[in-house]
Amino acid sequence: MSDLIDTIRPLAKKTDSKILMVVLDGVGGLPLTPGGETELASARTPNLDALAAEAQLGLVELVGAGITPGSGPGHLSLFGYDPLKYVVGRGALSAVGIGVRLGAGDVAVRGNFATLGANRVIEDRRAGRPSNEKNAEVVSKLREAIPEIGGIRVEIYTESEHRFVVVFRSPGLDEAGQGLGANISDVDPQVTGVQPMLAVAQDTTSGLTAELVNTFVQRAEAALSDEPQVNGVLFRGYSDVPHFPSFANIYGLRAACIASYPMYRGLASLVGMDVVPVEGEEDALEGKVAALTENWAKYDFFYWHVKKTDSTGEDGDFAEKVHKIELFDELLPGLLALKPDVLCIVGDHSTPSKLKSHSWHPVPLLIRSDYGRKDLAARYTEEEAGRGSLGLRRGTDIMPLLMANALKLQKYGA
Amino acid sequence: MSDLIDTIRPLAKKTDSKILMVVLDGVGGLPLTPGGETELASARTPNLDALAAEAQLGLVELVGAGITPGSGPGHLSLFGYDPLKYVVGRGALSAVGIGVRLGAGDVAVRGNFATLGANRVIEDRRAGRPSNEKNAEVVSKLREAIPEIGGIRVEIYTESEHRFVVVFRSPGLDEAGQGLGANISDVDPQVTGVQPMLAVAQDTTSGLTAELVNTFVQRAEAALSDEPQVNGVLFRGYSDVPHFPSFANIYGLRAACIASYPMYRGLASLVGMDVVPVEGEEDALEGKVAALTENWAKYDFFYWHVKKTDSTGEDGDFAEKVHKIELFDELLPGLLALKPDVLCIVGDHSTPSKLKSHSWHPVPLLIRSDYGRKDLAARYTEEEAGRGSLGLRRGTDIMPLLMANALKLQKYGA
Repeated sequence: MSDLIDTIRPLAKKTDSKILMVVLDGVGGLPLTPGGETELASARTPNLDALAAEAQLGLVELVGAGITPGSGPGHLSLFGYDPLKYVVGRGALSAVGIGVRLGAGDVAVRGNFATLGANRVIEDRRAGRPSNEKNAEVVSKLREAIPEIGGIRVEIYTESEHRFVVVFRSPGLDEAGQGLGANISDVDPQVTGVQPMLAVAQDTTSGLTAELVNTFVQRAEAALSDEPQVNGVLFRGYSDVPHFPSFANIYGLRAACIASYPMYRGLASLVGMDVVPVEGEEDALEGKVAALTENWAKYDFFYWHVKKTDSTGEDGDFAEKVHKIELFDELLPGLLALKPDVLCIVGDHSTPSKLKSHSWHPVPLLIRSDYGRKDLAARYTEEEAGRGSLGLRRGTDIMPLLMANALKLQKYGA
Repeated sequence: MSDLIDTIRPLAKKTDSKILMVVLDGVGGLPLTPGGETELASARTPNLDALAAEAQLGLVELVGAGITPGSGPGHLSLFGYDPLKYVVGRGALSAVGIGVRLGAGDVAVRGNFATLGANRVIEDRRAGRPSNEKNAEVVSKLREAIPEIGGIRVEIYTESEHRFVVVFRSPGLDEAGQGLGANISDVDPQVTGVQPMLAVAQDTTSGLTAELVNTFVQRAEAALSDEPQVNGVLFRGYSDVPHFPSFANIYGLRAACIASYPMYRGLASLVGMDVVPVEGEEDALEGKVAALTENWAKYDFFYWHVKKTDSTGEDGDFAEKVHKIELFDELLPGLLALKPDVLCIVGDHSTPSKLKSHSWHPVPLLIRSDYGRKDLAARYTEEEAGRGSLGLRRGTDIMPLLMANALKLQKYGA
């Protein structure tokens, strides 16, 4: 599959039309027993049903056949970035996931706490899976011990259990626009019974970063020497900030992200969307409707995210996932009242309660505009979407289809 | 999307079977009101319906999801050439569109007549949109003034209004097979209030072409100095002849083009089809049936083009587009009487009357051969094609499918 972005960019034109992309995270599901109904099919969704009757439906695979997308690749595909080409490194995704913004030249690193025995030999690569509280306590010790290394600011964040994130803040960019390099070898040997490895730079611009990492390891072990179990650190996955062409650059769109969880706000900011404030706790559905309404005049593309359809699937709670779908259905009239020229409802992957995890199953796609044909699909469900006129597609097809339906794409060739 | 041509070429074999590809230009449509019928669904087409009942149907996107194809890319895709890889430049397409044949080493240039004020400053980049008659009158003056430049033959053609085409005929190819280069900068600054720009060669083989263009601009302004409005020329879009592998080279087919409009005859000649004479005015449907019958024994592939399904859509005349579809339906028995081994009916893009322009919507594809499976699609309409057994595909899939159905493709691998 070629990169559509280079084809789309010169065709994009600015118009007054508005596109609303609703992402119901993990919305695709499975029946609990063969031949049964999925969460979407079980839900009572009169508003979605009415919308589906006049919209076009299809199914999308976000990354590829049989491939289960993580949240990063799933969203990048929705935003039109081929997730096999545009990769967010582990370090950057971890940072983004806990709400840490990365600047040009910064490097984010994924760390694990470990238990070291005599002679620094690794006994447990996860330090006995400490509690989040213990993690935070140790991170606090490290913050005090290592605020900076050689003038480079060091930030340390709790992720969960044995996982933490370190961000080395670049002192600035050199004349070639280069900050800290991220191409260095792992400290984590991925086995026990040996010592942590020395980080080695794999290119000329990453030498300083390798030194920072090795110094960090040394000073962390000193700071944690009185800890019986959480007394070592291992690093794996270093990333600088991914430089993706922005939504404004590709599509000419002023784009807003309306999401309440850090991961999704972070992903949207990576592609240059404005991340607008949302009031409320957790999924904050009403707050998101309010944020959408308040910002409606200011933007021409809106990414509007619902999280709980995924979390309930991850919990394996079929009934609760059905309930979250129904809650969204109740809000739908509020979105329709804004009269988007193009409305899209889709997920970033499936999360069947039966599997308690993300899955590879295609996700239903709905597009409503004034330029649709008659469509046989009567509901926003996996089964009905399978006979919709949009067919079975890659996720990266969605943005071109939305742009076309908004009459924002010029003809290709004469 | 990979280039299928390299896979197909070694598999192609010659047989006596005949393939007829009917291209109903812009045939795909939209309902005028949501939930209504498209032009195809509204038309009374008993012959097409009977054919569809025994054929296989599907939908094709010629360039990609959401992308509206121009006639060039749309046709190249139908002929099996990836339109993102095989690009016909603006100059060449304009020349082709008015029926001018280009030879190896020639360069075709798109020109606009402009109005220049004092000190050669551009006042109007379209010279007040002159009539076609005025255009022809000015072209005639230029032909007299600039028959050649430094021994290089110069041909000047009216396109329409302010548009004209210049062809510089290469004096021959050098030892490396290089003629005139086409890689030079635009004369048209695309704004008013400034002078036309000097053309500058962007590579070593285009130096002479840049000189030709600059000399042409100078001599044209001298020749038009007594014109009050049409007194300058601007150039933009230079192209040499695209070198595409031919139909004979890829498919081993002796291919004939049966079309009455210059653009389509030109596109077919670019891929090495024989362009056979057609008697009659405009779309000349009866003339095309006669040309097909006369040439039936001589070729094994026929590209048979109908134009008016597109022009009526461009006019926004829903009823007239329906009528043109019905006129084709009346002719269909004449085509079937020739008993093609493989019959394909398709469009090069959609042209919904509602949009009065080409559009991105997929086009119905019909393939009839002795080697089809049962198919749920009962009519040649967008909706029925959407449940056909051929699925939703790229246009470049069509030629391999036709070759296979004609039993002209060998097994791939042992």
